Amino acid sequence: MEAISILRPDDLEAVHERAMTILEEIGTDVRHEEALRILREQGQDVDGERVRWDREFVMEMVASAPASFTLEPRNPDRAVVIGGGKPVLAPVGGSPFCSDLERGRRNGGIADHVELVKMAHAAPLMTCLQSGTVEANDLSEHSRHLEMDYSILRWSDKPYVCYGTSGEKARDAVELAAIACGGRERIERTPAIMGVVNPNSPLVWDFLMVDALIEWAQAAQPVIVTPFLLAGATAPVSVAGGLALQVAEALTGVALVQLIRRGAPALFGSFFTAVDMRTGGPAFGTPESVVGTLAGGQLARRYHLPYRGGGGLCSSNALDAQAAAETMNTLWATMLAPSDFVLHAAGWLEGGLTASYEKLALDLEVLRMFEVLERGVSLGEEDFALDAIRGEGPGGMFLAADHTLAHFRDWVFMSPLFRSQSYVTWEKQGSLTTDRAATAEWKRLLEAWEDPGMDESLDAELREHIERRTAELDAE
Amino acid sequence: MEAISILRPDDLEAVHERAMTILEEIGTDVRHEEALRILREQGQDVDGERVRWDREFVMEMVASAPASFTLEPRNPDRAVVIGGGKPVLAPVGGSPFCSDLERGRRNGGIADHVELVKMAHAAPLMTCLQSGTVEANDLSEHSRHLEMDYSILRWSDKPYVCYGTSGEKARDAVELAAIACGGRERIERTPAIMGVVNPNSPLVWDFLMVDALIEWAQAAQPVIVTPFLLAGATAPVSVAGGLALQVAEALTGVALVQLIRRGAPALFGSFFTAVDMRTGGPAFGTPESVVGTLAGGQLARRYHLPYRGGGGLCSSNALDAQAAAETMNTLWATMLAPSDFVLHAAGWLEGGLTASYEKLALDLEVLRMFEVLERGVSLGEEDFALDAIRGEGPGGMFLAADHTLAHFRDWVFMSPLFRSQSYVTWEKQGSLTTDRAATAEWKRLLEAWEDPGMDESLDAELREHIERRTAELDAE
Repeated sequence: MEAISILRPDDLEAVHERAMTILEEIGTDVRHEEALRILREQGQDVDGERVRWDREFVMEMVASAPASFTLEPRNPDRAVVIGGGKPVLAPVGGSPFCSDLERGRRNGGIADHVELVKMAHAAPLMTCLQSGTVEANDLSEHSRHLEMDYSILRWSDKPYVCYGTSGEKARDAVELAAIACGGRERIERTPAIMGVVNPNSPLVWDFLMVDALIEWAQAAQPVIVTPFLLAGATAPVSVAGGLALQVAEALTGVALVQLIRRGAPALFGSFFTAVDMRTGGPAFGTPESVVGTLAGGQLARRYHLPYRGGGGLCSSNALDAQAAAETMNTLWATMLAPSDFVLHAAGWLEGGLTASYEKLALDLEVLRMFEVLERGVSLGEEDFALDAIRGEGPGGMFLAADHTLAHFRDWVFMSPLFRSQSYVTWEKQGSLTTDRAATAEWKRLLEAWEDPGMDESLDAELREHIERRTAELDAE
Repeated sequence: MEAISILRPDDLEAVHERAMTILEEIGTDVRHEEALRILREQGQDVDGERVRWDREFVMEMVASAPASFTLEPRNPDRAVVIGGGKPVLAPVGGSPFCSDLERGRRNGGIADHVELVKMAHAAPLMTCLQSGTVEANDLSEHSRHLEMDYSILRWSDKPYVCYGTSGEKARDAVELAAIACGGRERIERTPAIMGVVNPNSPLVWDFLMVDALIEWAQAAQPVIVTPFLLAGATAPVSVAGGLALQVAEALTGVALVQLIRRGAPALFGSFFTAVDMRTGGPAFGTPESVVGTLAGGQLARRYHLPYRGGGGLCSSNALDAQAAAETMNTLWATMLAPSDFVLHAAGWLEGGLTASYEKLALDLEVLRMFEVLERGVSLGEEDFALDAIRGEGPGGMFLAADHTLAHFRDWVFMSPLFRSQSYVTWEKQGSLTTDRAATAEWKRLLEAWEDPGMDESLDAELREHIERRTAELDAE
């Protein structure tokens, strides 16, 4: 599939111009002394916390970030390229709750986190994981980030987005990854994890986020700079205003990364949608979110930055037609943008408040379809099947044709979850709806998980480090 | 949104070449004496029922069909342009069953047909109707087509796809439309209705379909030529083979129209998908159907023919996540192709066997989103909202900003069906899933219907004609 241009070249420049005006005239607040000191040194206009940015400076910083990079976990065979033309997908994260149709909706715990890690590890399409897929609420809030990161390191060997809502937690994540992946020098050479930073939109870089950004940038671990702009709440009630803020916030985040370590990878992230004016909640899967995701992709390309956008996002509280329609809107936009990195690609329900096991299975199903679409159409002579058409002739039937029997297993997409079944048969078999069918599917996935294994001494080193840090953190 | 090219220019020519080879070397069966006589006269190679077509002849015929045309019903204000850059949408049709969540799934009757006509009439996005939206099984099968067409003529004043599964029924449809729309001369000048013909894939033009095609072509009413190609059943188990047959069948249908009346409108129709090899049923909303719909649009443009493709198609038997995901896949492909005319855009369930009232409401909801997407992004100064951003400044909140209050009603898409609601509130209000919410929505639509009115003498003329024809047909 090709990229969609929803903005014309002139439109792109109009957004860029407004973003530069915002940076120069309004500026951003930066609530971090060290960052302010560096910005002052670099000749930016710093007035208290307010920074008015020089556009040439911002663009020079942005230009020093790479357009693509490799992320290499402890198993080098699992390395992925972000910005390499194929979207790298990661599951939902940041959800306080999780749910499945057998055990119901519940507060997330570390056992749930481990299950979700195992399912994402077992799913070939999830080439990246995310710590905090569900929050481990049963562990101390001071130290649980260590256990969530560890559960990925131990039960998977794929790269991941680490936990990191403060500088200290970001540093812990880097230390764990360094231990597991061959040392600090090795991960500084080729990064192993990524971190997410969200400015407080509009236009505020708060202390905790900047502190985390600095830790990751110092270690050369990629930073996913993602403004969470909600038209009508954290942004004006227009797509245009949101895009201008999006550029202003994302580019200053990328510039901060470059200020700390020139050449460190950073992603242009988009998480734009509109607020539901009836409830004040974010409305996912709306036309605004589609347009925001598509425009974000064009803007990221304009700045030669890898793009994080979209996902399998929905507002619905149930695994119903709304959830699927919203998710399909956001996933189509994601693929058409196209996104280089997709966070929350599978398992997202209730505006992200719940990591749903069945939704994970359903999303994997449609992601498999997008994978087939990515491959495009094959037009070789065997595909055209003129001999088969000649053989059957007018009025023929290809169901039992040699050509069909030779190829149907490889050539036709067959979904375990989505079936074409006669109504009568379906009714006789219990009128199974897809949400219920997805329960068997996530169980199959969990059973399919294979332990990637870990050297005992490495595991011991990780455990020792975690226990020492946990004791320190919980004593504070 | 712009058109997607899934086939490269070379690919398009490869499909064309294979289609021409099929026509010249294999040919089609044409089971209609009069058509065979004309084809023989035109120098085609006719051997019994088998016709081997000359490619120059076919392409010359195709070139005489218009790339766009106007369809004008009895109310000229309801005229639509097919091929004018904006998709014309029509509801589901051909379903033996209908269903709603209150009255359940049932055999369709004329009362259901009337309700579905009224809902489609009341929906601004449905700019065209379809006779036989549900089959009126409670009426005589010989004459019910007259009552179904009449129910559109009387309770709507929009253009429509008429009923017509034989020459005689097609002629009845033309006669009714002529009475209602100012006479045969007027509808020959500007057509009022369209007819659908499906070859018996692969490569058979049977008597009934050709007979219907001839009636519509003689009256210059547009013919929608739509091969129903199922990879693995009526077509080889490959997209490429299906596309080659698609072109061969569609172009010979268009050529037949032109042979009867040069310049009469005809559409290049696509209805390609794969069979579910586990059940033998058609699987809608699969990657194959997406690719088929997108490629069909490119091929139609290559032949300068208006394109009918896609729709809100799904295989699911329930209003569940599968139904929505499949429908979104087919609708995204429809809009990206883009289709000029979309049959079955709303209300299609169970592979088309059921016209679902709730599905109609759900599909209208997502079609409204596509309408917003079609409008693209507005980038005026008021949209960029720099004054509002300046006013709020870093850390501001736009929820109560003047700019938000001035524009949110017009600028933000608000779906009556899809809401962003907190889980707790949603649960307290009864955990309403979207299928249930859609019941209220179709009722609202039915209540919103306004009688377009009909001159009493015209109505009497139609009724008199229908009663005479019904008596004739039921006596046969």
